Amino acid sequence: MQPVYLAGVGMTKFGKDSRALVEILCEAAQQALKETPVVDALYIGAMNPEEFTGDGNIASQVAETLGLTGIPALRIETASSAGAAALMSAFQAIASGYYHHVLVLAGEKMTHLSTSATTRILAEVIDKQERQCGATMPALAAMIAERYRQKFRLSQSRLESMLCAVAQKNPANGSRNPLAQFQKAITRETYLASKYVATPLRLYDCAPITDGAAALILTDQPTDVRLSGIGQGTGPLSLRGRDVFTSFPATRVAAARAFHMAGIAPRHIDFAEIHDAFTPFEIITTEDLGFFLAGKGGEAVLDGKTAFDGPLPINPSGGLKARGHPVGASGLAQVVEVTKRLRGESNGRHFMRGLTQSIGGLGTNNFVTILARTDAPAVHDSATPLPLPVITTAKKQPTQAGVSDEGVIETFTILHVTPDGFLPPLALALVRDQRGALLMAQGEEDSQLKIGQEVYLRQIDGVCLFTVKSQIQKVQHAFRNLLRRWEARAFLKSSRGRAPS
Amino acid sequence: MQPVYLAGVGMTKFGKDSRALVEILCEAAQQALKETPVVDALYIGAMNPEEFTGDGNIASQVAETLGLTGIPALRIETASSAGAAALMSAFQAIASGYYHHVLVLAGEKMTHLSTSATTRILAEVIDKQERQCGATMPALAAMIAERYRQKFRLSQSRLESMLCAVAQKNPANGSRNPLAQFQKAITRETYLASKYVATPLRLYDCAPITDGAAALILTDQPTDVRLSGIGQGTGPLSLRGRDVFTSFPATRVAAARAFHMAGIAPRHIDFAEIHDAFTPFEIITTEDLGFFLAGKGGEAVLDGKTAFDGPLPINPSGGLKARGHPVGASGLAQVVEVTKRLRGESNGRHFMRGLTQSIGGLGTNNFVTILARTDAPAVHDSATPLPLPVITTAKKQPTQAGVSDEGVIETFTILHVTPDGFLPPLALALVRDQRGALLMAQGEEDSQLKIGQEVYLRQIDGVCLFTVKSQIQKVQHAFRNLLRRWEARAFLKSSRGRAPS
Repeated sequence: MQPVYLAGVGMTKFGKDSRALVEILCEAAQQALKETPVVDALYIGAMNPEEFTGDGNIASQVAETLGLTGIPALRIETASSAGAAALMSAFQAIASGYYHHVLVLAGEKMTHLSTSATTRILAEVIDKQERQCGATMPALAAMIAERYRQKFRLSQSRLESMLCAVAQKNPANGSRNPLAQFQKAITRETYLASKYVATPLRLYDCAPITDGAAALILTDQPTDVRLSGIGQGTGPLSLRGRDVFTSFPATRVAAARAFHMAGIAPRHIDFAEIHDAFTPFEIITTEDLGFFLAGKGGEAVLDGKTAFDGPLPINPSGGLKARGHPVGASGLAQVVEVTKRLRGESNGRHFMRGLTQSIGGLGTNNFVTILARTDAPAVHDSATPLPLPVITTAKKQPTQAGVSDEGVIETFTILHVTPDGFLPPLALALVRDQRGALLMAQGEEDSQLKIGQEVYLRQIDGVCLFTVKSQIQKVQHAFRNLLRRWEARAFLKSSRGRAPS
Repeated sequence: MQPVYLAGVGMTKFGKDSRALVEILCEAAQQALKETPVVDALYIGAMNPEEFTGDGNIASQVAETLGLTGIPALRIETASSAGAAALMSAFQAIASGYYHHVLVLAGEKMTHLSTSATTRILAEVIDKQERQCGATMPALAAMIAERYRQKFRLSQSRLESMLCAVAQKNPANGSRNPLAQFQKAITRETYLASKYVATPLRLYDCAPITDGAAALILTDQPTDVRLSGIGQGTGPLSLRGRDVFTSFPATRVAAARAFHMAGIAPRHIDFAEIHDAFTPFEIITTEDLGFFLAGKGGEAVLDGKTAFDGPLPINPSGGLKARGHPVGASGLAQVVEVTKRLRGESNGRHFMRGLTQSIGGLGTNNFVTILARTDAPAVHDSATPLPLPVITTAKKQPTQAGVSDEGVIETFTILHVTPDGFLPPLALALVRDQRGALLMAQGEEDSQLKIGQEVYLRQIDGVCLFTVKSQIQKVQHAFRNLLRRWEARAFLKSSRGRAPS
């Protein structure tokens, strides 16, 4: 493969930007083009410009607005990792020798819409049945966090401290980043005073709604930074289609390929930009990437291991939390941040290798990219490079048609910011029914909800509802079952010997 | 570059399909996977599944539904050429050596929406100002056809015969294609009896609204068919941003690159599948591809040169007109059709090289692909391969802010099927104002409209209106101008020598 290098980079000030998406993209592009003014093609990442802005054909629009009419231009989309997907395609375009210099662009314009409109558009990337129950991205992220807490036997306050540590670290880092949307550190008190979006996640656990764009030029001409590894993986769309809730297999697949290609192991990475759309995602991802053991990512943050001046800085730019999260842009903005940091210095340190990880949807379409300075010393101790992942055929999820009438809660959340048509607070639970199938169900708010609890299930108008079994209900239910069995036996006895009518 | 070959292909029956988009895509995919069951990645072309179906994250969805969870999957979009764009990216992915086998998929689901909703979504790919005037894709295509008529001095009935020849040829070809939406030839009388959508285009000049999907597998393992050339180009989004109206420079750029890569010239192509979303596009494209001289494409159809059994069959599959046009799918469906024809026989003939051409938006983002049998004899007479295109910076279009009050019609149409909020019939004209700027303007229906006519312009609420100058108006206008000049002179005389107040 032709080696691929990074030339010019560009990024707009993230936040509320009154300009049209195309103008925002062009500003970032022009910054990157300053260094390498001639490019062969444009590869653009954007999640949903059609619905966010009402305009389609974004690739042609940007080519024309940049004054590059004629140039090949296409758009790549993988939900919220679209920026990383554009990088992947552009990388392959150069690695093939088809193009020499490609301008990679990514952006999104979101702040001009109401929060409810934005939430609806963002929710289109999640599973339809779960969406119909009222699930949103924060709700599903919250259910993952709750499951993480239970799996690794963390008390509520211990998990809260871990999430708070991420929610404090990233804005503190953002305060050093002039392009970040939020450049102000927050206190533990501010965090604890912020409202729940979906328990256990508060407002400060979620990345903001942002406008912004990032740009970079990939080239086959050697520069100071090389794209040394890149990988992509997918995972189940729905929560109920998963075997594992506290890890994203899509990240593991992507990381295995990226490390394999770069010929290095996680220990050779100096710092990383990670998709912290929700604070638990940062913790889980540091585990998926092999930086920490499963269940140890939260402790690592509390111990300062991922702090700006720690041994493995995670999101030194502020991450999605503080830099902002224009969905389609984030995957590329991370790469711009890493490139800048490799070229400069970070708190007196000179880094050799940085990694980015981007998440599409609910950890459904993820990318890992490894960048290295071309003067980085070769790695000799990578005795056991990660093996390339093997894709296995997923088992089919039983259809929702017949829902059995009892089940057990696998994870849950109380959603306080609900989508249109759902009144808050809304309890959502992932329930495993008696036949072993997982389903998303809606219930009443109940402060007593916990994982492992038994529930009754009912399906009304295609939406599954649950109620927690009380002790009295359990006894009533047992009696009803006995009665039913007795009646059935009596009926069978009475009908025995009769001819069918 | 690693050579790239075509393995298995698949295509659904195009037309009205009651299944969900993901299911349609999976049917095509499973056909293609029969031959090569193991693939490294999915590259999916779709124009706007979010708005057509309400669901995003299509790449991850399809990967999961196919039981290939874990596999890298991404979606490419370039408006209505998305299927060809997916092929381009997948080609680069294999040519780079990064993947060995890629499943390329493309599809769209459209028929479940009302025509007005579909028209609105399709119109998002055209220029905003032109859209605000009421322009639709058929309207703009019609204006191109009218300009073609004027440029090549064709009578109205001569152009009508040419368009009718395309509108008859493609359904006749479609009658041999069991997967085509329309499999019935039409008579000249049927054509002439069909209603105008936008003069001079009738219903039978426009491709239908369709559901469908196509699939193929690209591989680095030699097969019987090789992807020997591929190219992409862009052009101005708007009609008013163009130097030329009767040709798509984006096709010329794409073709130059594809022929250059394949090392052949247009004369070496045996047959082609061309983006005939509107009949004039087929005629123009055969000229842009170098098959016929500018202005001679229409005659070629009338002379039977592009007929099924002619020297250069164009759209032997029925084209978009008869096969149907699920927008994101068409660019890939063409490649499936060409591959099948290269592998089989066509009316007793064995073809060696086929070409596809796909159009995104109003000729804004176009692709050309050349496929060849691996046993095709080498070309020795390609003395002068087409040079690679040079991209020049486009000149900036003056902003619409100040519109002068007079202009000349460059082209026009009477739109009979209007978008929501516009009453038919609606006259639309591309007008060059006194300062040389082009603008789209709305007028009253007028059977006397013609290119070169002088008009008055007025801008109301951001929409530009035109009225044709009558003889009386011209005289009145001349007098008003004289009067204004006389008043100005009198004012200047009277104020001369006074100090400014």
